Formats: sequence, C-alpha cells, structure tokens
Amino acid sequence: MKRIAFIGLGNMGGPMAANLAKGGFEVVGFDLSQAAMTALEQAGGKSASSAHAATEGAEVVISMLPASQHVESLYLGEEGLFAQLSAGTLVLDSSTIAAETARHVADAATAKGILFMDTPVSGGVGAAKAGTLTFICGGSEAAFAQAKLVLEPMAKNIFHAGDSGSGQIAKICNNMLLAVLMAGTTEALALGVKNGLDPATLSEIIKQSSGSNWTLNVYNPWPGVMEGVPASNEYKGGFQVDLMAKDLGIAMDTAISSRASVPMGSLARNLFALHAQKGNGGLDFSSLQKLFAD
Amino acid sequence: MKRIAFIGLGNMGGPMAANLAKGGFEVVGFDLSQAAMTALEQAGGKSASSAHAATEGAEVVISMLPASQHVESLYLGEEGLFAQLSAGTLVLDSSTIAAETARHVADAATAKGILFMDTPVSGGVGAAKAGTLTFICGGSEAAFAQAKLVLEPMAKNIFHAGDSGSGQIAKICNNMLLAVLMAGTTEALALGVKNGLDPATLSEIIKQSSGSNWTLNVYNPWPGVMEGVPASNEYKGGFQVDLMAKDLGIAMDTAISSRASVPMGSLARNLFALHAQKGNGGLDFSSLQKLFAD
Amino acid sequence: MKRIAFIGLGNMGGPMAANLAKGGFEVVGFDLSQAAMTALEQAGGKSASSAHAATEGAEVVISMLPASQHVESLYLGEEGLFAQLSAGTLVLDSSTIAAETARHVADAATAKGILFMDTPVSGGVGAAKAGTLTFICGGSEAAFAQAKLVLEPMAKNIFHAGDSGSGQIAKICNNMLLAVLMAGTTEALALGVKNGLDPATLSEIIKQSSGSNWTLNVYNPWPGVMEGVPASNEYKGGFQVDLMAKDLGIAMDTAISSRASVPMGSLARNLFALHAQKGNGGLDFSSLQKLFAD
Amino acid sequence: MKRIAFIGLGNMGGPMAANLAKGGFEVVGFDLSQAAMTALEQAGGKSASSAHAATEGAEVVISMLPASQHVESLYLGEEGLFAQLSAGTLVLDSSTIAAETARHVADAATAKGILFMDTPVSGGVGAAKAGTLTFICGGSEAAFAQAKLVLEPMAKNIFHAGDSGSGQIAKICNNMLLAVLMAGTTEALALGVKNGLDPATLSEIIKQSSGSNWTLNVYNPWPGVMEGVPASNEYKGGFQVDLMAKDLGIAMDTAISSRASVPMGSLARNLFALHAQKGNGGLDFSSLQKLFAD
Repeated sequence: MKRIAFIGLGNMGGPMAANLAKGGFEVVGFDLSQAAMTALEQAGGKSASSAHAATEGAEVVISMLPASQHVESLYLGEEGLFAQLSAGTLVLDSSTIAAETARHVADAATAKGILFMDTPVSGGVGAAKAGTLTFICGGSEAAFAQAKLVLEPMAKNIFHAGDSGSGQIAKICNNMLLAVLMAGTTEALALGVKNGLDPATLSEIIKQSSGSNWTLNVYNPWPGVMEGVPASNEYKGGFQVDLMAKDLGIAMDTAISSRASVPMGSLARNLFALHAQKGNGGLDFSSLQKLFAD
Repeated sequence: MKRIAFIGLGNMGGPMAANLAKGGFEVVGFDLSQAAMTALEQAGGKSASSAHAATEGAEVVISMLPASQHVESLYLGEEGLFAQLSAGTLVLDSSTIAAETARHVADAATAKGILFMDTPVSGGVGAAKAGTLTFICGGSEAAFAQAKLVLEPMAKNIFHAGDSGSGQIAKICNNMLLAVLMAGTTEALALGVKNGLDPATLSEIIKQSSGSNWTLNVYNPWPGVMEGVPASNEYKGGFQVDLMAKDLGIAMDTAISSRASVPMGSLARNLFALHAQKGNGGLDFSSLQKLFAD
Repeated sequence: MKRIAFIGLGNMGGPMAANLAKGGFEVVGFDLSQAAMTALEQAGGKSASSAHAATEGAEVVISMLPASQHVESLYLGEEGLFAQLSAGTLVLDSSTIAAETARHVADAATAKGILFMDTPVSGGVGAAKAGTLTFICGGSEAAFAQAKLVLEPMAKNIFHAGDSGSGQIAKICNNMLLAVLMAGTTEALALGVKNGLDPATLSEIIKQSSGSNWTLNVYNPWPGVMEGVPASNEYKGGFQVDLMAKDLGIAMDTAISSRASVPMGSLARNLFALHAQKGNGGLDFSSLQKLFAD
Repeated sequence: MKRIAFIGLGNMGGPMAANLAKGGFEVVGFDLSQAAMTALEQAGGKSASSAHAATEGAEVVISMLPASQHVESLYLGEEGLFAQLSAGTLVLDSSTIAAETARHVADAATAKGILFMDTPVSGGVGAAKAGTLTFICGGSEAAFAQAKLVLEPMAKNIFHAGDSGSGQIAKICNNMLLAVLMAGTTEALALGVKNGLDPATLSEIIKQSSGSNWTLNVYNPWPGVMEGVPASNEYKGGFQVDLMAKDLGIAMDTAISSRASVPMGSLARNLFALHAQKGNGGLDFSSLQKLFAD
C-alpha cells in the first residue's frame, strides 16, 4: 500500500484526500485548518503537524493549493519540500496555477531527481466528492504512468496533455472556453426570452442543434429550467464567479505572454469581472444570466 | 397521398424536395433554375412553369428562399400566392428570415384562412441530403400537428418553438450561439497550440471536460484533427462564412430591435465579418481558425 | 425673406425653428403637439394645422423627426409632401435615419424636381438652443450651396459630406466613434481610480496626452470633475442613453448591410444596451460611468 | 550645475539625455551599445564604462529601460545601484513598467534614504527628440518639486499623478485609452469609406464633432489624409504595434490584479495582437487601419 502525503485539504483537497483513503491508500494530510484535518481522519486518513511531517516516508506527494505563490513556497527554497524529499518521489500538484510556475517548479524537481507533474482538475467540488474529477496532466510519460495509478480513486478521466506545464495550459484553455460558452449561452437565452420564447423550450431546441454545449447539457443557467443546478438554487454552490475570474486571469496572462489574440475569452473575462464588481463574486458562475435578464 | 408544392430548389431546397418525393408525397417544384427542376424530376417529383402553377391543387406549400424580400414577394400582394391559395392550405416557410417578416406573412395568411408556419432548419446541406434536418417551427398547435406529418421525411428533429416567428427566433439564437462556440473554440485551440500543445490532444481533453461543445464534438476546426469535416478538406463545403454572416446579421437586427445586449454574439459577428473581408467568405465557417493560427 | 416650413418641433426641432425665426426667416411650423407650436409662435414663428398647410408657399422645407418611417410617411406616397411641393423647392431632412432611407427619399424628390438633402446634426439640445449645431449634409453641390444659407442661423459648422445619404453615414460614423470614446474613457477612469488615482488629476493628465478626446475635453463622465456637464448633475439632461442606443442601432445596420467589421462600436452598443436594460435609458449617455464604478 | 547619470540610451533615452546635456546639465550616460554612448558624447555628454561608474558623483539618476526586470536588476540586490547611491540622491525611472514593480523599487529606495519617482513618458521618439515629452510622475511632493527642475529640458508637460506607482498607472490608463481611440477611429473611417465617403472629408467632419480625438487630430491613420504621419509613410516610424501590445499587456495585468472590467481596452489589445500576429508588429500602431480596410 502506497503512502501519500496530501497538502491542502480545502473544499477540493479535502474530499480528494478522503477518496484516496477510501481507495486503499495510506493518506497523511496537512492543512492550516484543524477542522480539515479532523475531517480527513474521519474518512480514514491521518494528519500531520506540518507539510514536512506529512511527507515523511511518503512515496507520493499531492498538493491542492490556492495560487502560484503557495506552490512555490511549499516546494522551493531552503525550507521547501524539494530540499528534503527522496529522489524518485512522485509529486503531483493539482492546483490551478500559471504554466510558467509549473515549469519552473518541475525544473527544480528534476534537479533533485524528483518526478513532478502538474495535474490540475476539472469538475468542481461535486466531482471531487464523487471521485469523478478530470485530471489534466503535464510531465513525462514515465511520471504519467505512475500518476494514473494514484489518481484513479479520485477520477473519471485522466489525460496526459504533454510536457511540464501542459496540464495547466490545457486546463486554462478549457476554462476560458467554458467562460465563453456560459457567456454566449446566457445572452442567447435572454435574447430568445425577450422575443417571446420559453427558456426551457429554447434550451431544449438548442441542446439538440448546433448550439449544443456543456452549459446547456448539464448546467443550464436559467432559473427553473434544470433541476439540481445552481441556477435552480439561487446560484448557490457550484463554481464561484470569483474562481472563474481567477482562472480567466491566468488565461489572459498566458495569452499576453504568448502574444495570442483571444478576443472572445477576453470579453468573457470582462463580463465576469463586471458581474463580480456588482456584488456577485460569491455566486455560481452561471449567475452571469442575471446580467442579461430583464 | 398529399400533394406538395415546393418553391425554391437550391442547395437546401433541392434535396429536401427530393426526400419528400422519396417519402411518398406528390411533389411539384418550382425554381428559376431549370437544372434544379430537372434534378427534382429525376428524384421522382414534377416541375411546374411558375410558383402559381406549382401550387395548383396542392394541399401543402413549402418554400426555401434566400431572404425576407423573396418570401414577401412570393406570398404577399396582388401577385402573391396568398391571393390564390384555398383556405385551409398549409404553408411552411423554411427560409431563414427576420421573425418580424415571418409574423407579418403569418398575419396575411391568417386573414385568408391559410395555415402558415415559419419552419427554418438547422443542419446544412449534408443533413438536407440525408433527411436529418432539424426543423424549428413557429405557429399554432394545430398547424404544428399537420406540419409534423409533412416534415418527417426530411427531419431528424421537429421542434415547436412557439407562436408565429418563434421558429426564426430560436433558429437565430441557436446560430448566434454556434458562432460564439466556433469563435471561442478556434481561439482556445490556437492559444493551446501556441503554448506547445497538440491540437488533437487538446481537442480530446476539452471535449470530455466542461468546454465541450458541438464544434469540438462533430466539426473540429483545426485541420487534420477530425476526418470528414471541412477543416480537413481545406475548409471546402459545409456552412459558408457568408451564410453565417447573413444569419448573424439577422440576429443583430433582432437584438437591436428588442434592445437586447448580446456582446459575445456581436463580437463573433465582427470576427466573421473581418474574416470574410479578407477573402474567406466562400469557405466553411470553421475557417475562422485561420484568423487565430500563426 | 425666405419662407420656411418646419415639420417636427420637438426638443431639437423646436429651438432650431426658433433660431430660424430669430434669424429673419418666415417660419411656419407644424407638430402634433400644440404646446410645441405655441412655443414657436412665442419665438416669432407661425404655426399651421397640418404639414401640408405649413408648406404652402414655402421655398424651403425642413424636417426633424424621430425615425425613418416618419420621414418616409411625411414625404412619400400619395399623401406625402412630394406629391404637392413645387419643383425647385429645397427640402432638408435633419432627422437621424438610415442612409438607405435618405437615398430612397432623395431619389423620389429628384423625380419631382425637388432638391433634397439629408442634413443630420451633431451637438444635442444645448447646441440646438444656442444655434451652434453641426450640420452634416448629403446631396448635390447645388443643393448644398442653397442649404448653407438656410442652416446658418442654427449652426456653428456646416459640412458637405458627399452625395445623398452621406450626411447620415458621416453622422453615424461620428456617433459610433463617440460611443467608443465614452465607453473607453469611462473604463479607463475607473481603472485609474481603482488603482488609487484621483479622477480629476487623471482626467487632466490624459486630456493633455495621447488619450485626449471630446468626452474628456468637454463632457467628463466622472461626477464632480467638470462643472456644467450631466455627470455633475446626476446624469440629467444631455444626450440620453436611449438615443445613443438608437443611433448605434443605425450604425450597426449600416455595418451589417455593408459587411463591415466594427468590433469596437458593436461592443460599445452592447454596453449601452446593458446599461439601458438596468434602468438607465433616460440618463445622459455619460452615465455609462456607473457601469464601471464600484 | 547638476550632474546626472542617464542609464539606457536607446531610441527614447538617447535623445532625452542629449536634451539634458543641451539644457546645461552634466550628463554621464551608460548603455550596452557603444554607438549610443558615442551619440551622447557628440551631443555634449559623457559616457561611462558601467552603470555604477556613471552614477559616481551624480546627484540625479535617470533610467529608461525596456521592462520591469531590467529596472529591478539595475537598482535592487547586492549588485544594484541602491546599494551604492548616497542618501538623498534623486532617482527617476522613465521606463514603462508595472506599477507594482515601481512601488516595490520605490520602497527599496526609501529604505536607503533615496528619493525615487516613477516618471514614465508619453509622446514617442519625435517628442523625445524635440524635448516635448509628457512626464507622468508618481512619488512624494518633495521628490516631484526636485524632479520638475531636472525634467524640464525634455518636457512639454510634467504631471504629478500621485504616490509611487501612480505615474505608471496614469500612463497605462492613457495608453489603453489611446489604443481604444485608434481602434475605434480606424473602424469608423473604414465604415464610412465602405459607404462611399472620402476619408479626408470624413476625418475633417468627425474632428470638428463629438468624435474628435487625438488620433484624428494629429495622427490620422488613413494613408494620405495627413502629412508627416506614419500612415502617409507606409506606417514606418512612430509607435510600433509591438510596443503598444507591450503597454496593453501591462494595462491588462493591472486590470486583472485590481479586478477591473475593461472590455474596450481588452478588445483593443486583442485586435492589436491579431494584427501583430499577421506580421505587422514592426509597423506603427496606426497600421491597425489595414485590418479594417478592404
């Protein structure tokens, strides 16, 4: 049985670590919140007094942290984990961060003989709990072969996007496109309703036509059209506008540094920023519908 | 066996009329092109010397014409068909035109006791030939019940969107969203490729994630990623940029007259207009990929 | 002394007609509002019981109406003024309407030997009252030479843009650009203020740099920065959001019919539409600042 | 006579240093290019073998460098100038960099008793040569009082935007708005010309109307309309698309980190990025006109 250190037991990391424990791994977690660690213990894992303590004896380290600086701080420098981990340890960072940072951390890992992959996820808290996340991995073939075995209890899909950083690039391409789908769908539904159509009928027609997309299929943004989605629960739960705005910020940075033109994604970012500025940052991102509704 | 007059036997109307003939209807067609009428005869239909002649004895009239003015000219005025058709005739206009025009024509029909529906289609020439079009119908429940029986040989899906004009509204909402999906997908793929990803791998990842949409599923815009689509055939065939631009023009008119805000659809329209202006109007609309590729 | 018939004595037409009367012309006005006609009488003009009555004996006809259909209805058809006016009459339409309509009306005038120009204005109610409007004229050189003499009491600038319809085209190009200037200026000011700058200082710096534009120079949108502008009067008065939206609708129609790409103007239209939809249609168009302010 | 060290003698820094020398200051310059140093000597300045050598005995240091990392590298760290400069030295950085970096460098200066201001410029190479730049300064009132005396030989306008970093914020607000003005102006001119107007006539009309802005006033983007601008010289010279793209990248970073919505500026960035990607990065930024011209 493999021993896994899991750093970052928040809304996403907590259920992910729990699923690993249920999947038969020996999981030792660390988080700044004692409540998060207690929850892991109840799910069959153990907790440690520090990130360093959690990784003692671990063959695999997984991290799920808020942003680039947390990842750099965890792994790099004299106090970082890379200074202590054995060569051959597999390190998987599932945080959504800049590809540039992921590549930089991967280089530092390689210098120590550590196998590092960026393994950001798609799917949100619901999929984290259900063990049906999509993992998008960047790194070597060898690392990917090992990573798959570890990620399985948490995953529905595990993709190998390419070299280091590729997981992050694919993730933000996906999320930028998701933002475009959501923005486009909300304004199209509003246009139809303004012109006399029923939102459920219109949704059904488009779903079965060429405008079909993930948001209409499983995440309809119009209140009352689909059961069990945030739109039918006052836009609570789901994927917050502020988190979408964070991912779009990373996407824009990537576009700027690679001199790419992404007019649709940029416009979507600005619409979500406008929506957040009006006090909706804590709502699910499908609440963009409110921007276009009368 | 019902007798159907079919007016407009172009790229779309021709195969539609042929499928009706194969489906057991007695089809009498009219088109300004003799070649189009000969093709219908070879498919088992008949041709007539004028639109008026075609409708003699017909219980159903179907039209498939380029734009609003052609539809108005066919049906309205002293020379129009409504002046001659018997009360109770079912008239189905499958042209993509302004909802306002559709409502205006429907009102004129009602005044004569004629049953009129706007029945625009989604699916393109391929679906017209295969008899797998999606029909989006606007008009009364009674008209829809009759229309379904007639449209079946040409259709995979037949939707009732609502009252007169609703078919057109739903159609342009769908096509505006399709333009957004295509524009967003092309720029997202280009961003990924610029940052080192393989377009096929990236497409596969997004298809199975939350960025999934019709264009990635069945119409991938990157050359060589998917077989049998225009992108893998030098963007020939398919749905021309100029036709998408026409539909987006109708969508914009609808948004302007209903004072709706459709920023994503408007940006997509301008990107397609830019692309057309650079000489790509005759290519398939997935050729927008060229705008963002290096 | 020339006799002028003035049709349409609203917020713009009223003061324009008054200035003509003060300028020594014999002005006979007509409007559906009796109050508007009384106001003209107080300014030294006369009123008539109908548009036809107003034009009796007039050498010049000027109209200032809300939209294309009013202009067509006034001049065309069996009941229209062109059926009655003497050949050689000079007709100036200062309404903001589609160039296509202006050309169509001009053709009808020419067929009767009437000299027609589209003469839309820039400057708003303040300039109408002050007699400092900018007239942008489309039509023949001969018509322009005569028009200048008539327009002078109402004008600061009188431009000849080109042939029939050119006045309307130039007007909507100007107003589309104005919408872009205002939208760009409001978001730039908000960005600066969010990052700690004083709006008045930032306005002054940009005004004297390469971001300088009409809105910063004479129409600052940030409350309190400039005296005597709508922004310092709760966005009352000035040029209403709904009127800007109307002009942008004409600009978009022109872009669609000429297959032009106008991404900036289109985005501006959608921002103003969003702003109007949130209940701000009756405010001055500089109130778009509220969309971007915290 | 004050002694000034000038670091960075490129297209901008070279003529700026020369004007200081002509203005009576003792200027000691340093650049990696020997040719640049020779040019300064010919203008009456001196050169040094390193940045450190240039600052010996200097009361004022001015830097004009390409990007944030160059500025950090020049001033910070053990090898940086701040480790050596005397307390009380006035340091003016005219580079266009992130406000965050400017604030960070200013803090480091303050810790050593050095007076630091961010003093980015507006106006381009022409104004640098003519000594008519606009300086936009961020820092204390005390530093500004001293800075004015030094900047005068290079300046037409010297603004105090606010505290440290404010100069950079005001600069990128201005340049973002400039990009919006240029993009809006180019598409408006193209719309007019597509509809039959003469570009010079249309430019003149808008210049005297509410669409008036810096680009029409002094930098007309349509070839042949205005003499002496890049548009009339095959878009050579001026302010390169790539440099505008760099400034827009900084503006976007600022918007993302301050969660501001800047839809117009973002769209302009993407249009310039598209234009650069098609091989126009080395042309003047008014060449965006080519994107919209037939």
